[in-house]
Amino acid sequence: MITSKIQPTVAFQGAHYAFSEIAAKKYFNREIETLPCRQFKDVFTAVENGKSDFGIVPVENSLTGSIYQNLDLLLESTVAIAGETSIRIEQHLITCPGVHLQDIRVVYSHPQALQQCHEFLSSLENVETIASYDTAGSVKDIRDKQLLQAAAIASRQAANDYGMKIIREEIEDIPENYTRFYIISKNVQTPINADKTSIIFSIKNIPGALFKSLSVFALRDIDLLKIESRPLRGKPWEYFFYLDFAGNMEEERCRNAIRHLEEITAFLKVLGSYKSAAKR
Amino acid sequence: MITSKIQPTVAFQGAHYAFSEIAAKKYFNREIETLPCRQFKDVFTAVENGKSDFGIVPVENSLTGSIYQNLDLLLESTVAIAGETSIRIEQHLITCPGVHLQDIRVVYSHPQALQQCHEFLSSLENVETIASYDTAGSVKDIRDKQLLQAAAIASRQAANDYGMKIIREEIEDIPENYTRFYIISKNVQTPINADKTSIIFSIKNIPGALFKSLSVFALRDIDLLKIESRPLRGKPWEYFFYLDFAGNMEEERCRNAIRHLEEITAFLKVLGSYKSAAKR
Repeated sequence: MITSKIQPTVAFQGAHYAFSEIAAKKYFNREIETLPCRQFKDVFTAVENGKSDFGIVPVENSLTGSIYQNLDLLLESTVAIAGETSIRIEQHLITCPGVHLQDIRVVYSHPQALQQCHEFLSSLENVETIASYDTAGSVKDIRDKQLLQAAAIASRQAANDYGMKIIREEIEDIPENYTRFYIISKNVQTPINADKTSIIFSIKNIPGALFKSLSVFALRDIDLLKIESRPLRGKPWEYFFYLDFAGNMEEERCRNAIRHLEEITAFLKVLGSYKSAAKR
Repeated sequence: MITSKIQPTVAFQGAHYAFSEIAAKKYFNREIETLPCRQFKDVFTAVENGKSDFGIVPVENSLTGSIYQNLDLLLESTVAIAGETSIRIEQHLITCPGVHLQDIRVVYSHPQALQQCHEFLSSLENVETIASYDTAGSVKDIRDKQLLQAAAIASRQAANDYGMKIIREEIEDIPENYTRFYIISKNVQTPINADKTSIIFSIKNIPGALFKSLSVFALRDIDLLKIESRPLRGKPWEYFFYLDFAGNMEEERCRNAIRHLEEITAFLKVLGSYKSAAKR
């Protein structure tokens, strides 16, 4: 947990009642002011230019995998990871009151939500899916425009708060559907209870470079928690590696591992040390 | 190159002139019969049930990263990787004749193509992007429906062959835009010139398991070419690793490495050994 001024501002992507806003309220567990942003990039910008104290962005879903756009933004941005949280995602099919399943010709939601409900959506006939910028925003849209042949996929909160109806509950492919979020800030201070560090690196073109770069952790008994690769734009088939390890940058063995890693890598960026979220 | 009957059938996702079909023609470099499929899953099914001799699916783009849907299908399917190829992707903005840039209110294309042209699309005002199942299919659609406020993003071949107009050329974010494809078949025979092997594994819950699993290759001087992680559905924050290494399963050191890897992994699947594509 981060301590800051009485009521910090937290930027998130989407409309109010988006999953990111729900996650922010869980993480801070006190009164916060939330700042809705149109795009993920705008969340990073709001934190960079001080318009918002913190930002919250989804980075991984347990069904569909990483949210690559935010991994890419972490590379470009100057913000640090200050914390993480995860929430269970329940997706519901939401319509204007009076609409029935057989009336629906189009389903709107965020691409991630559409993907999480892939099996349910495949079972519908003559229904088009349209990717929109947000789950909760889709509910607001079909309400504002009174679209009676449309449905949105979003949270229960979004349905309730926009006065709309859930016509099918929990339509995600499997209920073990969690999303992990990073809390980002300009502040790079390591919290006292930090037990996890995230870094990005690219390797030099030498034999066994990837193995050698992982050795720097193994040699110091530092556990690797996750590894992910992303393309190095402009250099086809070369990669940035996103790596999470157990430990924080205040520990000497971690600082030594990073110093050792610098000998092997062409690029290295420490995104931050923070307290890991509970497993579920 | 694969030798088979005189004119093999190759299943691909999309409409004729899709990038997958262009890549198939490059790879086989002789007369082939192509079988358009609606979804990636259908390509796998066509190969599994013998309706098609081969299939071709995109697995990675040098700007946007892996095509995760096909990585997931490789895990589920019984097909093997028989080869790979890569082509440069040039994306063009295509309309019905007579339509101008300022008339356009909506742009249709495959999500990957929309992503590759993100910067161009962001520069347009009051234009909605809609994800469709295919690049070439989007061109066909706006022609068939004579949509005069719409554009599609697709290849030059698609524009020419559907008699449509390119109004902006090469709108991809950067020209170093390549897509890599796997050729899949039921046949698991290793070609004589195979120099690359792809595997999928998940690790046991033991300390340093990921590092140990990469050691089996380093200890035998086998170079790792790529590593990628995908969520293990139903087990939040556990992963399948997709790994490519230099060598083929006819080599003793590679067979030994895989046997060693089996001691550490909870799950292991060899997708195939094949000749790697040229770097560009």
